[in-house]
Amino acid sequence: MGKPIQIVNSHRIAERIYKLSTCSEPTIGVTRLSFTNEFQLAQKMVEKWMLEAGMTVRRDNLNNLIGRYEGKNSHSPVLMIGSHLDTVIEGGKYDGMLGIVAGIEVIAILFENGIILENPIEVVAFCDEEGVRFHSTFLGSKAIAGTLTERDLEATDEQGITVAAAIKQLGLNPLEYQEAAKEPKDVFGYIELHIEQGPILEKEGIACGIATGIAGLSRYSFKVEGFAGHAGTVPAALRKDALVGAAEIILAIEKLVKNHAPLVATVGKLSVKPGSSNVIPGEVLGTIDIRDTNQYRIKEVIQAIFQTCEEICTRRGLTYHVEKVMEAPPVYCCEEISAAIESAIQENGMRPIHLVSGAGHDAMAMADVTKIGMIFVRCEKGISHHPDEHVILDDLGIGAQVLLDTVLKISNYHTTVKERF
Amino acid sequence: MGKPIQIVNSHRIAERIYKLSTCSEPTIGVTRLSFTNEFQLAQKMVEKWMLEAGMTVRRDNLNNLIGRYEGKNSHSPVLMIGSHLDTVIEGGKYDGMLGIVAGIEVIAILFENGIILENPIEVVAFCDEEGVRFHSTFLGSKAIAGTLTERDLEATDEQGITVAAAIKQLGLNPLEYQEAAKEPKDVFGYIELHIEQGPILEKEGIACGIATGIAGLSRYSFKVEGFAGHAGTVPAALRKDALVGAAEIILAIEKLVKNHAPLVATVGKLSVKPGSSNVIPGEVLGTIDIRDTNQYRIKEVIQAIFQTCEEICTRRGLTYHVEKVMEAPPVYCCEEISAAIESAIQENGMRPIHLVSGAGHDAMAMADVTKIGMIFVRCEKGISHHPDEHVILDDLGIGAQVLLDTVLKISNYHTTVKERF
Repeated sequence: MGKPIQIVNSHRIAERIYKLSTCSEPTIGVTRLSFTNEFQLAQKMVEKWMLEAGMTVRRDNLNNLIGRYEGKNSHSPVLMIGSHLDTVIEGGKYDGMLGIVAGIEVIAILFENGIILENPIEVVAFCDEEGVRFHSTFLGSKAIAGTLTERDLEATDEQGITVAAAIKQLGLNPLEYQEAAKEPKDVFGYIELHIEQGPILEKEGIACGIATGIAGLSRYSFKVEGFAGHAGTVPAALRKDALVGAAEIILAIEKLVKNHAPLVATVGKLSVKPGSSNVIPGEVLGTIDIRDTNQYRIKEVIQAIFQTCEEICTRRGLTYHVEKVMEAPPVYCCEEISAAIESAIQENGMRPIHLVSGAGHDAMAMADVTKIGMIFVRCEKGISHHPDEHVILDDLGIGAQVLLDTVLKISNYHTTVKERF
Repeated sequence: MGKPIQIVNSHRIAERIYKLSTCSEPTIGVTRLSFTNEFQLAQKMVEKWMLEAGMTVRRDNLNNLIGRYEGKNSHSPVLMIGSHLDTVIEGGKYDGMLGIVAGIEVIAILFENGIILENPIEVVAFCDEEGVRFHSTFLGSKAIAGTLTERDLEATDEQGITVAAAIKQLGLNPLEYQEAAKEPKDVFGYIELHIEQGPILEKEGIACGIATGIAGLSRYSFKVEGFAGHAGTVPAALRKDALVGAAEIILAIEKLVKNHAPLVATVGKLSVKPGSSNVIPGEVLGTIDIRDTNQYRIKEVIQAIFQTCEEICTRRGLTYHVEKVMEAPPVYCCEEISAAIESAIQENGMRPIHLVSGAGHDAMAMADVTKIGMIFVRCEKGISHHPDEHVILDDLGIGAQVLLDTVLKISNYHTTVKERF
């Protein structure tokens, strides 16, 4: 094993990441929700880069964009690479986008060097992973994995627009979503490169690592109901303040979680009604998001949380309602693909580190149709879902290089490709 | 003292209260913010009733509607009766409106019976007391009391519209707000009839009572800043969750207040940013509203609240910012007017009960230009600022009758008026 050579163009990656970040609502950071104008603008850019990298491009009826780089044998199972093009509100410019841009970079290198692999490769820019707009997730990868249902299309955003209606406005036919689905026999595997969104790689001083699995995720919405009243006239002892009840619940969740690390729980959304400074809150709506690689621990903590909520609300004369919004069990990566990533990392002069993803990824949904692998790239301070999300230039290149080397290994491209350069 | 005779028409009052309640945004309860279409619709109704009751009507440049019932001596100081026409979000149909409708009823009775008093009477429908839209209060009564400033006109609503701009749209000239101001010498006094918004009259089984004063009110806005991050990847121990910090503050306020009854404090508004189920909250904005008849106790509790906030945020690695939005010292009612109300209540066969108002009222602002008096009317379960706010038919009549009798007493109408009927 010689000194690793970096063939990919890290500057091109950085430039494209920057260009994509300009497709955003006018907020700090990047805000690009699914099926919006900003999103379609970003998709157009990605399409152009795919075409430049020698791919044919199509859009399925869920608004996933798929670039295909033909193999010697067009009937051989396809190797898929991808990530998502949507962001959270005021998010960063790497989460999702980096996986797409790195995937295109890999194909661009193959194309520019006239390398045709045995199997075709498809790079996918998924339509919806963060799920901010419709409070659902993985709409695009579920469609490709064949697990999307008509019910998923009925979810509504805050304006009451359904997924189906939003897709229709783009000139697609959401009811033909099954057309997007792949047969397991037609897919060789799925690889996703993604920022780590955690602090471990930075702490270890290594640019990228291997994800062995993705934590399971349960998400609930909850409602606490009390009784609205005048802020000046209802004595403290007679109040049924829904917000004070919710505050006690939020603190109780924090306390419960402390005894169950590495499980994490987050109340990310909270709305208070009626929401006037001189009215005692009568109703609070919120969300709880719980993640762990251990499904049983998730269930145990959820049980404990609900019991505590019940107890708090009963004591305060409040009522309490909870509804499951989504549940995704943990998934584990394919050992064969992980071994290829591990070799690629070692060949690029790094010590292989195995990580678990606390964040959900399209790979979770793709695991229903094929075997998956994930490459994590170090990000500054582990910050993500925040305008300060950052990956240094070198790491952009190293990550894409590891992805390229992994693809070559998996595709049995046995010539040591770097010898060609 | 014979059995009291009720001269006022309680059915007419109930009907008008109902009609006003239809001027609302399409919400449960009544939602009628200042200077909106709903508000102007309600104002038109009130204008018609004032004209029917023999008043001349004008609108000042703050959009207060003023009906004048001329006296024998038009230069004699005017007795003012009034309340406000705006509501909170999803509020009730009596808070504010009842004082206006009862005032018109009093004049209607005088007019229908050909009674002209020595002094003129003006019934005022104030433009903004709840302050929901602009987070200010008493815009209308401050203008009449001469304490409004140009700065009050610069406050903005959530759309960024200023008070001045909202008023201009109605064809008024807000910069000429000083035209609305009364000279102390020109006003004899101000009487406001209002629902109690508390449970005492109901508990005592009495339809109306005398308010001896109005609690002081301090209102603050606060901001807690932490660090937004991915809900799945930031370990619990490393989080700087602004919402968990705010929750601890809300609970701490509840605990602090318990030791300082009858002081009350309310966090009525809370907004969480960025507000996604999968993002750790990075910022929380909220309001604190504190009321008491004892100004020193308010200051003491505010100090304690800020100290606790400081301590919580420091411990959690959060930052904390607080700003005073408004401060109104307690005001006390005029003993002479209160004595007249007390006599009127007794003459109507009730035991006089003296109450303190926990809610702010236009009377607070009017106290800067003239002596004030307040009549409280029993409301069901003390509920207000809520769609369930309710006053029984009998109490509508009794309240208005006490107001009429008080007005006659104050105006030195010495003939026992009931003897005429």
